Amino acid sequence: MLVLSSPSGAGKTTISRALLAEDGNLTMSVSATTRTARPGEVHGRDYFFIERSRFAEMVQGGELLEHARVFDNDYGTPRTPVETALAAGKDVLFDIDWQGTQQMRQNARADLVSIFVLPPSVEELERRLRSRGQDSIEVVQKRMAKAGDEMSHWPEYDYIIVNIDLASSVGAVEAILAAERLKRERQVGLADFVNGLRGEG
Amino acid sequence: MLVLSSPSGAGKTTISRALLAEDGNLTMSVSATTRTARPGEVHGRDYFFIERSRFAEMVQGGELLEHARVFDNDYGTPRTPVETALAAGKDVLFDIDWQGTQQMRQNARADLVSIFVLPPSVEELERRLRSRGQDSIEVVQKRMAKAGDEMSHWPEYDYIIVNIDLASSVGAVEAILAAERLKRERQVGLADFVNGLRGEG
Repeated sequence: MLVLSSPSGAGKTTISRALLAEDGNLTMSVSATTRTARPGEVHGRDYFFIERSRFAEMVQGGELLEHARVFDNDYGTPRTPVETALAAGKDVLFDIDWQGTQQMRQNARADLVSIFVLPPSVEELERRLRSRGQDSIEVVQKRMAKAGDEMSHWPEYDYIIVNIDLASSVGAVEAILAAERLKRERQVGLADFVNGLRGEG
Repeated sequence: MLVLSSPSGAGKTTISRALLAEDGNLTMSVSATTRTARPGEVHGRDYFFIERSRFAEMVQGGELLEHARVFDNDYGTPRTPVETALAAGKDVLFDIDWQGTQQMRQNARADLVSIFVLPPSVEELERRLRSRGQDSIEVVQKRMAKAGDEMSHWPEYDYIIVNIDLASSVGAVEAILAAERLKRERQVGLADFVNGLRGEG
């Protein structure tokens, strides 16, 4: 399980999409949310857009690995698709904030690698939020203020990437994934393999 | 500090050379040895070929980060070049065995990332040892026996690479290096950088 967190506008979503296009073993966890879809967003791809009553039901039933309220809307990670993907040997990518990451550490049974994406500068962060053209000035200002809080949680993450350009950042996440897959404790069957090499197989 | 260990013949030396050619920030630790140079080996590049008396002097004076006797010859890692390279911000690559790795963990002040390289099969290991053409059949047999012992130490390493082909293995070490450099605790100045982003710099 790979968690990617950042203040909105740091480029996390763009990085995630590029990763998914390049890495066939990686699948994205699609969050459920009670907010309305933005133009271009697709139900089941960007989010599961659901009613507040259904969201409350999922919380009650333990169907979410983590959930949080942001700007009066609820967001959460459905448990079942994640467990299905992990069981199939896939790596799962999560685009969640620091609160979600903390809950995931507590609620998920699989091991978790966490990456925090920082913008290269305040000016660039604001420019990216404005250039989306999808939020009002008021929402951009709310997001800038929230970004400051979000960024204070970088010490809770395993890896830090300063997103200067997309290609380098995608390469950085790819390297982290490749390295984590090479860690001794993640390579199942190694003991048998080495015993075979040593003529004891 | 990046340690690369493997039974001889698994391809560690070839991987090391390719890495050094590709990664400008990486420098190789050159071992000191009391054995005689093989054809083509260069003093100061492949090894520092020194007298037994000088080697003993270095051991006594604490000038070696690790040392071991293999097949009646002494091998050791001189401390000063390593400390100079690390102080200059370089990463240092060590081509040492499991005994050396254990001593390095105890004696070196800097942090250490360790990788164990395994051959894809016993047959391939033997084929590589024979094709060198530099060792007698007796030495090849001694090395095969020693390979079995060496391989039993894989659980002491952070990462395991099965060396199926050179390009993939070099890519794997590159990914590990890139990922380790992105680890939060290795990125100096991050706290100041984030404070700057949050308007508290």
